[in-house]
Amino acid sequence: MRIAGRHYRTIALAADGCSVEIIDQTLLPFTFKLRRLQSLEDAAQAICEMTVRGAPLIGVTAAYGVALAMRTDPGNASLRRAMTTLGATRPTAVNLHWALARMSETLQPLAPGARAAQAYAEAWAIAEEDVRCCEMIGRHGLKLLQALAARSPGRRLNVLTHCNAGWLACVDWGTALAPIYAAHEDGLPVHVYVDETRPRNQGAALTAFELGAHGIPYTLIVDNAGGHLMQQGQIDVCLVGSDRATAGGDIANKIGTYLKALAARDNDVPFYVALPFSSIDWSINDGLAQIPIENRPAREVTHLAGLDERGRRIEVRIAPTDATAANPAFDVTPARLITGIITERGVAAADYAGLAALYPERSEARRAGA
Amino acid sequence: MRIAGRHYRTIALAADGCSVEIIDQTLLPFTFKLRRLQSLEDAAQAICEMTVRGAPLIGVTAAYGVALAMRTDPGNASLRRAMTTLGATRPTAVNLHWALARMSETLQPLAPGARAAQAYAEAWAIAEEDVRCCEMIGRHGLKLLQALAARSPGRRLNVLTHCNAGWLACVDWGTALAPIYAAHEDGLPVHVYVDETRPRNQGAALTAFELGAHGIPYTLIVDNAGGHLMQQGQIDVCLVGSDRATAGGDIANKIGTYLKALAARDNDVPFYVALPFSSIDWSINDGLAQIPIENRPAREVTHLAGLDERGRRIEVRIAPTDATAANPAFDVTPARLITGIITERGVAAADYAGLAALYPERSEARRAGA
Repeated sequence: MRIAGRHYRTIALAADGCSVEIIDQTLLPFTFKLRRLQSLEDAAQAICEMTVRGAPLIGVTAAYGVALAMRTDPGNASLRRAMTTLGATRPTAVNLHWALARMSETLQPLAPGARAAQAYAEAWAIAEEDVRCCEMIGRHGLKLLQALAARSPGRRLNVLTHCNAGWLACVDWGTALAPIYAAHEDGLPVHVYVDETRPRNQGAALTAFELGAHGIPYTLIVDNAGGHLMQQGQIDVCLVGSDRATAGGDIANKIGTYLKALAARDNDVPFYVALPFSSIDWSINDGLAQIPIENRPAREVTHLAGLDERGRRIEVRIAPTDATAANPAFDVTPARLITGIITERGVAAADYAGLAALYPERSEARRAGA
Repeated sequence: MRIAGRHYRTIALAADGCSVEIIDQTLLPFTFKLRRLQSLEDAAQAICEMTVRGAPLIGVTAAYGVALAMRTDPGNASLRRAMTTLGATRPTAVNLHWALARMSETLQPLAPGARAAQAYAEAWAIAEEDVRCCEMIGRHGLKLLQALAARSPGRRLNVLTHCNAGWLACVDWGTALAPIYAAHEDGLPVHVYVDETRPRNQGAALTAFELGAHGIPYTLIVDNAGGHLMQQGQIDVCLVGSDRATAGGDIANKIGTYLKALAARDNDVPFYVALPFSSIDWSINDGLAQIPIENRPAREVTHLAGLDERGRRIEVRIAPTDATAANPAFDVTPARLITGIITERGVAAADYAGLAALYPERSEARRAGA
């Protein structure tokens, strides 16, 4: 997508042909800065510290992390070490494990000497595939938005989104925001209510930034406000991304998503989840029982970074000195609260039958494996 | 309640016998500082700028604001001006209008020369009454907490609260926190999950502060986390305050309360609202249609104050420069989501029959007026 007229992706091979360039997302919306990953450790650290984040982008970064490891040492031990190191970075998004499994399957059969080149090629392929998936999610989601807009012609369409599931969470386009970009290009008058998404404020920092940079009108709200707006008829549709969907259609997404899904159901507002196939974990059914939820540092709750009046980025403490804080990073929205799941193949009901109809090959493999 | 061993109330007559001393709540939890209100304008500004906040405390402050006005000029025009000025400060909490109506009814029949003394006496009486109400809410709420604790003996009782409905929101004790203080004194192992309550962070700044100062264990969480904790069985009961209840049992409270009530219902967690009689607006039934919701400045969403590493209180911007933000300050939780309303007279079902049974005199007056 574009920033100040120039096209960017969130991750790309650097000009040297081997290191990997990413946008440092911890500095947004204040500073736009590229960083280079030159080793497996760099990639793992970027994922852990959320320099890159968003389920699809985590997957692509992990794939490139394997490539960086193979460039240094293409041996079996090095490959195993890359899998272990990257696999331990973050627990919830399944794209990470999906991408690692794909890299492993591709590289393990090869002679060590052939691995580095193939690893870069495969990481690139995963990135390209993600871009195509997001583009298709945009097209399928656009039809939904067009249908909703047709109900009240001439009025702006109000979408609520939580966290950042835009191009910054992927390689390009985004998942939940892809239909919004498509609608904007199609001339649909779309307006987005952006949940700030405490504690890390991905809504205020990333979604507001990317929508603003692209010229899409938005209004920032605190996470508490969405229910009230739905009660007042101010939201036409909720559109969020996901870090992991189960075969049964439950989805894990950024903490607080479940609360918005409850409010959507209580107010008859459609609630859609947009995700690529790589976010579906066919091995589990019950999201609440089976999706591991990451607990992150308490400091993310008690401290916050922003710009002071002189434009310097500083961190402030917002709680009492001795405050204890808990920081679960994701929650699970049960399938029963989800109107539909938008993937690169179309829109599915949030249940096994719906997902299996879109991915017959996966559901067959699942039956064979069971 | 106590801070560092010393007993405080949130508002009291100053040693000079005419000005009014309040705790500057905008500086908490970092600085504990008293401020003096010396005029009607001081009182109105303290309410507008949330130097004092919390429905009961707003009511008491308004009453003292009238007294300050009467001290300067006890004439009819001055009394009318005090009513208008204070009545326009904040729209949602009904205690403000209740206190002003009571002051007006008391003072209007009096000769101007008798008004100032009577105004101070009446403001004091309103404050004393609020303390007694909160104490009784504590006793009635304690029985509920004891009953819940009896279900799983030996385990700590986990209460979730939103915003600040503690002694800082009242004169002493608090509404939602009164049962928690009572339980703590009673030896019940109670632990509180404190919603930080964006955008003004009354949970992190005030509830965490007052619970910590009193030695009650708590864990600070972001507003997004409560639904997940309920799904995981971590919350035994939700307990919140209210800025206005309707005769039908709907309640307005700090924005985000409705989302927690939805999650409580979805997870079979009891959801109680604690309020004194002065928060009940007998003139309306339908909270969603009839309770005015205050919209506050966008800057409360885009900027945040905290302490930098050198301990200086500074404000930082946390959104893009040109971000548009909306800031509704309250939402309405429909009666159907409320397990019970705890008042100074007992626990009522959240409906007209329940409230009318506790307040037969008010419901009769309402019938007579209809």
